[in-house]
This record gives sequence, structure tokens and C-alpha cells, in this order.
Amino acid sequence: MIKLLILDIDGTITQKDQSILPETLVALRKVVFSNPEMHICLASGNVLPVMFGVRTILGVGESLAGENGGILLYKQRITSYFQKQKTVDAYKEIEKDLGAVEFITNRWRETSISFILNGSYDFTKYEKKYDVVIQDSGFAKHILNKGQNKGFIARELMKIYAVSKDETLACGDGDNDADLFEVVGMSGTISNGSRSVKERAEYVSEKAYGDGLIDIMKHFRLLEE
Amino acid sequence: MIKLLILDIDGTITQKDQSILPETLVALRKVVFSNPEMHICLASGNVLPVMFGVRTILGVGESLAGENGGILLYKQRITSYFQKQKTVDAYKEIEKDLGAVEFITNRWRETSISFILNGSYDFTKYEKKYDVVIQDSGFAKHILNKGQNKGFIARELMKIYAVSKDETLACGDGDNDADLFEVVGMSGTISNGSRSVKERAEYVSEKAYGDGLIDIMKHFRLLEE
Repeated sequence: MIKLLILDIDGTITQKDQSILPETLVALRKVVFSNPEMHICLASGNVLPVMFGVRTILGVGESLAGENGGILLYKQRITSYFQKQKTVDAYKEIEKDLGAVEFITNRWRETSISFILNGSYDFTKYEKKYDVVIQDSGFAKHILNKGQNKGFIARELMKIYAVSKDETLACGDGDNDADLFEVVGMSGTISNGSRSVKERAEYVSEKAYGDGLIDIMKHFRLLEE
Repeated sequence: MIKLLILDIDGTITQKDQSILPETLVALRKVVFSNPEMHICLASGNVLPVMFGVRTILGVGESLAGENGGILLYKQRITSYFQKQKTVDAYKEIEKDLGAVEFITNRWRETSISFILNGSYDFTKYEKKYDVVIQDSGFAKHILNKGQNKGFIARELMKIYAVSKDETLACGDGDNDADLFEVVGMSGTISNGSRSVKERAEYVSEKAYGDGLIDIMKHFRLLEE
């Protein structure tokens, strides 16, 4: 029995342009309605207040794990698990060296920095110097603290909700969901998922984005056929 | 011709529980699609990042006016029109005197404070002492600076987009939308609208929430029958 569902937002619940299909909205509410005992946590690289808005409109998401596991909203209480300073220092140098552009959401970040930089770069030098990890969510590049990832927060969530990994299902599509899939018992991704999540996922849907998520929900019997 | 549409979120786009009906989502996207020249601004008492999340999921809202007109996101740039300090000082005394409870979104407020306090109170004493205005949006009580309201930001928006009041339509349901209705040429409210907006609205729909909004869109020919 699935007691905890951890859902990525961008690219998993939402489409490529980050908006939601009405069908996905309807399906997600059915999942909530048909599984009243199951806890649902939204987990994203995005900041908590933006997720708060997403959750409000969706009507789905009992708890919110933001900034790739750096910060958690649970029962009207916000807990930060990491600091921001190292990620800010690393960003300053990357901005100077490579001309990265800050995300507007950095204004509300408390444990990380996100930026846009086209092309492929080797960030090892910055990771070592500032003791940080630089990750690509597909939507943005994120500078995170060591140990700050969705796997870390999934472990916290399993403790908080007192559920085992075999009772936990995670769905996501980006490299930042790979850590998540490592620590939960069940996992599903979609056709637009990255190679690393597809390698780790228990179920890979042939469908994309919101349609793929509905397919995963059916596969794990959270939604009727 | 309507060139600027200013839309309240809570209770107007969304239902009583703040989630959205799939039908409203579909209708709003049709409005955007069928009126490509029209600018749409979301205006709310809520904070900018939460509105940012709402906008992302909706796929609607070119600009965002948060905190009842205190702060604006326009073309990836954030402008604060007011400060926060007076509202914080006023809140501290109200909290001590009346036992108000802070909204979690205060963490992200930059120009106001919002709180929950059941019952009717006369806040004149605090308004005078701290030079602030205390307003009820139906969802929360807001401590604002003098002159900070949706009417103020509507004037700014008409300047920014270079449109006249006769080219501007506003839709809302709360007392904080009454100021908005005073400065625009066209206005619509819904059956759940407060008395003050109903008195000022050009069109009052007999329907509620999202259904009412669709009705307003049809009345002003932004959506086909």
C-alpha cells in the first residue's frame, strides 16, 4: 500500500511550458480523493512560496519540499535544512566567469541559488572551491549544498510520516529526481524523463508530461483505468 | 476595445477553497488566445512569489501586482512602491492586543502584513497611530501603507501599458477590489462579491467564483457565448 507519494512539479505535473493540462488537474484531484490515507508531498527545485501558489491552485500537496530538499513546509511550519551563503559565493564567481543569468526566484531562495546558462560546462572547479553541488533540473541550474537533494528530503519525509521506503512512491523527470528514486521503494518516470531517472525508475511511461503522470498513477493503482 | 484586463485571483479566478475549476482554466486560456493584443495583469493581496506560482500553473498573467498594489512584477523586473516597516509595527501591537495570527506568507511580504483575526474590530486606533490602512480581502486582513491599494496599481498599469481607463476592464470580488473599480472604465463582479464591489461594478454576474468570471468574460465579449 502506498502511504506517501512524492511528486516533482515541473515537467512531471506540468507541461513543457510549466502550465498544467486540465486533465492532469482532474486526475490529481481524483488521486487525492480516492486515496485519503496517502500523504502527498510536492518536491521541486523551485522556491517554497512559488510551490505554495502551485499547491493552492492544484488543491494537491500536503507538504512542500522546495529548493531540491533544502527547505520544507510541513503543517504550516517551515524548516530550513541548509544555509545559503556558500551557494551565493559560488554563484558570484560563476556569474563573473561565465556570464550566467540569475533566476528571478533567487529573491525568495533560502538555501540555494539557481541560474540560466546555455551550453555544457564543467563546474567541478566551483564545486570543489565552494563545497557545493551544481545540478541541472532541466529548467534551471541549481547551486546546492553538499547532501542537499531530493533523496535527502525523501528520507526526512519518510521519518516525518513514519512510512517505510516500500510504502513510498516517487514520480519525477529530471536528473534531480534520480537521488529521490535511489531512496524510495517505488518510482515512476515519463517519456520526457532524463536518462538517469529512466535508468533508476521502476516504471517508465511511454507517455509524456501530465499524460505520463496519469499513466504512472494508473500503473501503481492510485487511479482507476 | 479592451486592452488591459486586471484580474483578482482568490474568489474570482479560484473557488472558495482557493483551488481552480478545470473549466475556469480552459476559459482563461481561451481568453488569452482569442485576445492576443490584450494585456492581462493578476492583482492580489497575496505575495508576488505565490502569484508567480499561480501564474505559472494557469499560463495566464503577463504582469503581477502583489500585496494589494504594493509590489509589481513587470517584464522580469520587480518594483516595490512601498515599505514594510510601519505595517510591521502596527501588526506587533495588534498581535499583542487582540491575539491575531500571522499568515505564513508574511515571510515573503515586502510592503505589507497579513493576519487572521476572527470577529469584527475597529482598527481606527492602529491606523491613526501607525499611519496605515487595515483592509479585509475576505481571505485575510491586510495592513497596508496609506495609498497602497489596487486602484493605485491600476493607475500605474494604465501608464505602463499606455492604455486609457475606457480600455481597461477589472474583475474582482473583495472590498479590496472596490478601489480598483473606481479607477477603471469597465468592471465586473460575481454573486459572491462583497457589497462594496457590487455597488461599483458595471456588471454583476448571477453566477459565483470561476463560473461568474466566465460569465463576465462573455458579457464583455472576451469569450464567445
